[in-house]
Amino acid sequence: MRILVINGPNLKLLGIREPAIYGRETLDDILAKARAFAEERGVQMDVFQSDVEGELVAAIGAAVGKYDGIVINPAAYTHTSVALRDALSGCGIPAVEVHLSNVHKRESFRHVSLTAAACVAQVMGFGGYGYILAITGLLNLLERK
Amino acid sequence: MRILVINGPNLKLLGIREPAIYGRETLDDILAKARAFAEERGVQMDVFQSDVEGELVAAIGAAVGKYDGIVINPAAYTHTSVALRDALSGCGIPAVEVHLSNVHKRESFRHVSLTAAACVAQVMGFGGYGYILAITGLLNLLERK
Amino acid sequence: MRILVINGPNLKLLGIREPAIYGRETLDDILAKARAFAEERGVQMDVFQSDVEGELVAAIGAAVGKYDGIVINPAAYTHTSVALRDALSGCGIPAVEVHLSNVHKRESFRHVSLTAAACVAQVMGFGGYGYILAITGLLNLLERK
Amino acid sequence: MRILVINGPNLKLLGIREPAIYGRETLDDILAKARAFAEERGVQMDVFQSDVEGELVAAIGAAVGKYDGIVINPAAYTHTSVALRDALSGCGIPAVEVHLSNVHKRESFRHVSLTAAACVAQVMGFGGYGYILAITGLLNLLERK
Amino acid sequence: MRILVINGPNLKLLGIREPAIYGRETLDDILAKARAFAEERGVQMDVFQSDVEGELVAAIGAAVGKYDGIVINPAAYTHTSVALRDALSGCGIPAVEVHLSNVHKRESFRHVSLTAAACVAQVMGFGGYGYILAITGLLNLLERK
Amino acid sequence: MRILVINGPNLKLLGIREPAIYGRETLDDILAKARAFAEERGVQMDVFQSDVEGELVAAIGAAVGKYDGIVINPAAYTHTSVALRDALSGCGIPAVEVHLSNVHKRESFRHVSLTAAACVAQVMGFGGYGYILAITGLLNLLERK
Amino acid sequence: MRILVINGPNLKLLGIREPAIYGRETLDDILAKARAFAEERGVQMDVFQSDVEGELVAAIGAAVGKYDGIVINPAAYTHTSVALRDALSGCGIPAVEVHLSNVHKRESFRHVSLTAAACVAQVMGFGGYGYILAITGLLNLLERK
Amino acid sequence: MRILVINGPNLKLLGIREPAIYGRETLDDILAKARAFAEERGVQMDVFQSDVEGELVAAIGAAVGKYDGIVINPAAYTHTSVALRDALSGCGIPAVEVHLSNVHKRESFRHVSLTAAACVAQVMGFGGYGYILAITGLLNLLERK
Amino acid sequence: MRILVINGPNLKLLGIREPAIYGRETLDDILAKARAFAEERGVQMDVFQSDVEGELVAAIGAAVGKYDGIVINPAAYTHTSVALRDALSGCGIPAVEVHLSNVHKRESFRHVSLTAAACVAQVMGFGGYGYILAITGLLNLLERK
Amino acid sequence: MRILVINGPNLKLLGIREPAIYGRETLDDILAKARAFAEERGVQMDVFQSDVEGELVAAIGAAVGKYDGIVINPAAYTHTSVALRDALSGCGIPAVEVHLSNVHKRESFRHVSLTAAACVAQVMGFGGYGYILAITGLLNLLERK
Amino acid sequence: MRILVINGPNLKLLGIREPAIYGRETLDDILAKARAFAEERGVQMDVFQSDVEGELVAAIGAAVGKYDGIVINPAAYTHTSVALRDALSGCGIPAVEVHLSNVHKRESFRHVSLTAAACVAQVMGFGGYGYILAITGLLNLLERK
Amino acid sequence: MRILVINGPNLKLLGIREPAIYGRETLDDILAKARAFAEERGVQMDVFQSDVEGELVAAIGAAVGKYDGIVINPAAYTHTSVALRDALSGCGIPAVEVHLSNVHKRESFRHVSLTAAACVAQVMGFGGYGYILAITGLLNLLERK
Repeated sequence: MRILVINGPNLKLLGIREPAIYGRETLDDILAKARAFAEERGVQMDVFQSDVEGELVAAIGAAVGKYDGIVINPAAYTHTSVALRDALSGCGIPAVEVHLSNVHKRESFRHVSLTAAACVAQVMGFGGYGYILAITGLLNLLERK
Repeated sequence: MRILVINGPNLKLLGIREPAIYGRETLDDILAKARAFAEERGVQMDVFQSDVEGELVAAIGAAVGKYDGIVINPAAYTHTSVALRDALSGCGIPAVEVHLSNVHKRESFRHVSLTAAACVAQVMGFGGYGYILAITGLLNLLERK
Repeated sequence: MRILVINGPNLKLLGIREPAIYGRETLDDILAKARAFAEERGVQMDVFQSDVEGELVAAIGAAVGKYDGIVINPAAYTHTSVALRDALSGCGIPAVEVHLSNVHKRESFRHVSLTAAACVAQVMGFGGYGYILAITGLLNLLERK
Repeated sequence: MRILVINGPNLKLLGIREPAIYGRETLDDILAKARAFAEERGVQMDVFQSDVEGELVAAIGAAVGKYDGIVINPAAYTHTSVALRDALSGCGIPAVEVHLSNVHKRESFRHVSLTAAACVAQVMGFGGYGYILAITGLLNLLERK
Repeated sequence: MRILVINGPNLKLLGIREPAIYGRETLDDILAKARAFAEERGVQMDVFQSDVEGELVAAIGAAVGKYDGIVINPAAYTHTSVALRDALSGCGIPAVEVHLSNVHKRESFRHVSLTAAACVAQVMGFGGYGYILAITGLLNLLERK
Repeated sequence: MRILVINGPNLKLLGIREPAIYGRETLDDILAKARAFAEERGVQMDVFQSDVEGELVAAIGAAVGKYDGIVINPAAYTHTSVALRDALSGCGIPAVEVHLSNVHKRESFRHVSLTAAACVAQVMGFGGYGYILAITGLLNLLERK
Repeated sequence: MRILVINGPNLKLLGIREPAIYGRETLDDILAKARAFAEERGVQMDVFQSDVEGELVAAIGAAVGKYDGIVINPAAYTHTSVALRDALSGCGIPAVEVHLSNVHKRESFRHVSLTAAACVAQVMGFGGYGYILAITGLLNLLERK
Repeated sequence: MRILVINGPNLKLLGIREPAIYGRETLDDILAKARAFAEERGVQMDVFQSDVEGELVAAIGAAVGKYDGIVINPAAYTHTSVALRDALSGCGIPAVEVHLSNVHKRESFRHVSLTAAACVAQVMGFGGYGYILAITGLLNLLERK
Repeated sequence: MRILVINGPNLKLLGIREPAIYGRETLDDILAKARAFAEERGVQMDVFQSDVEGELVAAIGAAVGKYDGIVINPAAYTHTSVALRDALSGCGIPAVEVHLSNVHKRESFRHVSLTAAACVAQVMGFGGYGYILAITGLLNLLERK
Repeated sequence: MRILVINGPNLKLLGIREPAIYGRETLDDILAKARAFAEERGVQMDVFQSDVEGELVAAIGAAVGKYDGIVINPAAYTHTSVALRDALSGCGIPAVEVHLSNVHKRESFRHVSLTAAACVAQVMGFGGYGYILAITGLLNLLERK
Repeated sequence: MRILVINGPNLKLLGIREPAIYGRETLDDILAKARAFAEERGVQMDVFQSDVEGELVAAIGAAVGKYDGIVINPAAYTHTSVALRDALSGCGIPAVEVHLSNVHKRESFRHVSLTAAACVAQVMGFGGYGYILAITGLLNLLERK
Repeated sequence: MRILVINGPNLKLLGIREPAIYGRETLDDILAKARAFAEERGVQMDVFQSDVEGELVAAIGAAVGKYDGIVINPAAYTHTSVALRDALSGCGIPAVEVHLSNVHKRESFRHVSLTAAACVAQVMGFGGYGYILAITGLLNLLERK
């Protein structure tokens, strides 16, 4: 079983700027823990990150036939990208949307998710640990199919 | 550590009507699995269900001083209840919102969550397994505090 | 054949306050006429009234397997209750929505019905006689199935 | 007692196209049953149908002094015609609005009725039988006056 | 002269949780002061509290013929309850709406009051002292009638 | 100089129904006074009335080359007819919109005028006398050109 | 008979700036013609102009008992002033709203008139001649009373 | 193979008024070229034009069983006619919507098309040549079926 | 202790026009009673009234350092004045907003208050007696500080 | 004559995934037919595809001086990209927008086109054949210039 | 070269109240620096401040023929004043709008500027230094003309 | 001191297409003048331009620790990019937004700025000279810190 973990814009700065406030956990730290967790379960986990909407779209398109499931944190594109929505619903691979924070506590334009309707499930508000929950849930969904 | 799992309106019919379509898993089945999962981790899990918005509000109020965390599936009240939102933000107990289905695939009035902003995190779309993910995430949050 | 007639909030005051203006017909009067009408057609008619949204939800849930049809006047909950809508669409029993007045002549927030989409049909504006029309129509629908 | 039954646009195709799906009952069939029902009660029932909004307006205007009540299915004009609304409220004849389907189950622009506020009552979702319910209710209203 | 003071959801926690922040005044303290104030003026004051919307509706219905005036803090139901609005306008008893905080300083969904239009007057932002102002104003209104 | 006075739906009932309330002045009376006024000023005035939106459109199209100005009371079509707007802006003849009542005192959907932007001027609220004001203003506009 | 003609903000520049484009007719020219027209009919006409919303409000308040009718061009305050609306509906003097241009051809925020609902009638799009039409119509209204 | 080309309101003026600006091509010229083009391909092409919404509805209803495809320019009714939408979706004949201009460059109320959702395809902005493109596309669609 | 009572536009007409309907109590009567009430409590009360928004703004600005509290009836400016809101929040003096009528029973544009968010509290619907309630509440707030 | 055919995000998957359902025609197949069609008419046709919004913008910028016309299928960016709209209106090259499906039959957020207002014409709903219609129409437009 | 610097409501309190928080720079300080800057460049700078919308309108009207450019901080009237917008676009003098704070960081009703569309340019968020930037930019614009 | 000047989509065409209309000043010309201005003040100025939203996001992320301030013209992405907003608020570097034109004079969707709330200040409408004003203001802000 192979899964692809996709991360959207601005996530590379995580844990680097203002560690006293946001903590020192970087995206790499989060993904390392997630990969360890996945491999323990016999799952191969690849990662892809881009700040460019279209490269995320392309990565999803290229995943067809290669991956059994997707975990995606579309970050800011969650709220604006019809292209990502089309890629996710067009690729035919079950995807779980994950957000580090609880977007419902933030500005109202973040309460709208264009991409969620093209995913099977959503996890938010658990910080970096949300990736492990998303993978756990995704594996459960894949096993039930 | 003690957690309270709260379920809102219409969930008692789960698994009873039209099992050929919706599956035979009842709310009791889901909660039994969740309780087994919780007890395995040394966590006491109590449950409360009501179709009455105000009884859910009262249950949250009564949880103060008794529980370390809440898992709540407000069902239809997610979209209409300011009272539940006030109860969740007023009780001071960290709560995780869980939905069986991915509400973003349903009618647009279900895309709005009044209660989510008063919870720390949200899990949706994993069916009954979502309760186990919510508990897992809630425990992770409580341990990190 | 058995039908359940459900009445929502504030309907108990009907015919009691200001009879000079609103008439002396109480909810009991209306239901008595409706029951007589139903029994004449060999139909057993039970009634349920509550001011509590969740008790109406529970009554609909409890009707599964006991009734062939529902006549419901959700009163104020027509415009605000996703829970009633979910109960009506989840119970699988054909329901007819009835209103004493023509809601389109009242405030604009009453022009929206959340519950109507979960019913098969709707009757409004005929006063208490609307219950008899609703039962007539419901029987016709049940016979055609 | 004389009533006028008015039908709006596109209703002539009823029962003609795709009878396997929509049934074989035509508008003429429905109206024949309604007329039989009315005459049984000693009521003279005339019918008028037009696809043209303004001809419906004119028919309502011409009904003044000739009819005691109106049953109207404005079809698509329900949602767009201020002119029909003005005709119905201006003619001073009590009218009952009838729809074959439950418009609340269809596109959201069909949830708005411009004409209903100018009618005394509304019946929807009972198919062709709705005309008989509308007439029954209209007679009840006229007798009570 | 008899008045009924009605309190809505979540008010029982007042003064109990986080007294360092919100103060130690409980709802019982507030009501005790209000009752003392009322009795000093020869007014009998009864109280009712419920977290359940429909029980508040029922209490208002049951007040007909027993009370000369109502003071109501609908709390969260202010913004969502058509049923309370109907109860208040249907009962025929003059009511004053009271809020502890100034709702205009909070989330925009709290700027809308469904119940205020069914009350004669409104007082907000004075904390617990607002009940005494509401009673004072209500007595002034009743005396002027 | 020749002008065409066009009247929209429902205006034929004017002065006929309920003369005790609305007065006994019919559309014919209003138009007779307007024609007398016009002829006194050496202006030929023709009239057209229809309840059918498309016939009003056609009349405006047919006016090209025959009339120097148009006075139009589109009645209900004011608020719904893009076709009339297109006819008025396409015909190239200066038109004045007239309304018997002040539409700003009526329902909010009557505050929107689709046709006014295709007219040069508007007169409302003067009853039948508004036609004479509209003609006076139209002649003033034509003389200034 | 005495009427007051009130003009709102920015009207003093009329005819002064860019006469080649907007013409050389100033507000004084327009009012002189209007006064001549009024006096010819035995009507005393006073004028008031201010750029200050509150001074217009005060002038309307001061008109009570002194004038039989008002002609008002609220200019920009048409679209923003609840205070002017309250003054016009509170003063009890019949008022006619006049605009030089056809506001329906301009920005959409000019399509809304707060003041028109407090006037009996409205005239727009006839340039300075509109004042004469407004006076003519106002006199006709006053004579009919 | 037979197709029906339907034209809506105001199209008869095309090419007649202000030929220096809009060109001298009339609707008849456009339709003559389209018919020549169709006949060259062995397709019989009939035409229908009306300014009356309901006559367009009736023409579509009458086309059932007579035509294989429809090309329709609903003109202004595109944006306002639910009746045309119902006719097009009810008739079961594949239709292509055509507009002379690019409606997206015009007023925002023209960006909404009620009829397009009931057609299979749409062509706009090519002037009269758009009819030939619409026929070409329609034939391609019919051949593929 | 010194308080300033500020009154907005149109309040000078109170009690003067149509005393049979609105009562004979003028703004001066109301303020005299309020001043007597204040002085009884050892509070100096000054008053300011203007129909001009900017003069109200200036009066609030000039109150800094002179008054301990403000009672303000912004009348129509409640719904339109950002400038008053800025003055109230900028002056740093606690203010109570008072309205004679219950604005929630009036037009929907009066349900919005721009100024209330810059006040500490609000009283409405008690007529002139509301000023006394506002002063009472304001004194209570000042004493608690 | 040279034209550039631009394709937006997600179009590379066309015909590859689930051919049984969507058909086996790939974007390359569609473009090969379009190029054959163009070359037959002596037109040179180049193609560009990208999933990246900014690369589409850059391609349009780079087309200035090289191409006489553009055919563009912006896919998902149709509904979200102001940058593409600016590129299309800034480049000065006539463009035709093409969509494979009829977007009016899909989600309401797809009914809005930001790019269409910057194109001369639009073709939708004809599947891959739409490219040939777009080219045909574009050539007709270029010849008429 | 002469410029007029206009300041709107509430700006007189700047630097006076709570200097520890907002700094000690008053409007006079800001304007003194701006005047020194202007005079250094040989530009005469006059200032006008008022809390009254209409006095600002009048000042702009009176500036015609006297000033070459305007710098205006409309403060709260930015968001509500059509009258100021009309004055600015009617006076024909190029104006630059300046705001001390970045209004996009504040309440959403401050994101709308009615006046900006009538100015040539806008500067915001630089505090008092923004006036110097506005003058610099205005001079650059005037020199380029 | 080092600043980064970032330019968004479509700006490369500036001054190249139609110089007779838009002038011959290219983005390079503007930036050359800005750099000369910056260097004169001892400030190092680097530039970055991309049509790709994500590359702009990445450039902002890469600026952390390298630049003291940012001047950004997000062009079309101003109105659509949450990603740019997140990059600007996440990078912790003070940024000034600059626009060549006054966006308030253009389409209403350009009146919304998603990025401005993440910048400290904004300058618009001064053409290329706005970059120099933005740099001047940015330096002033940095010096004051």
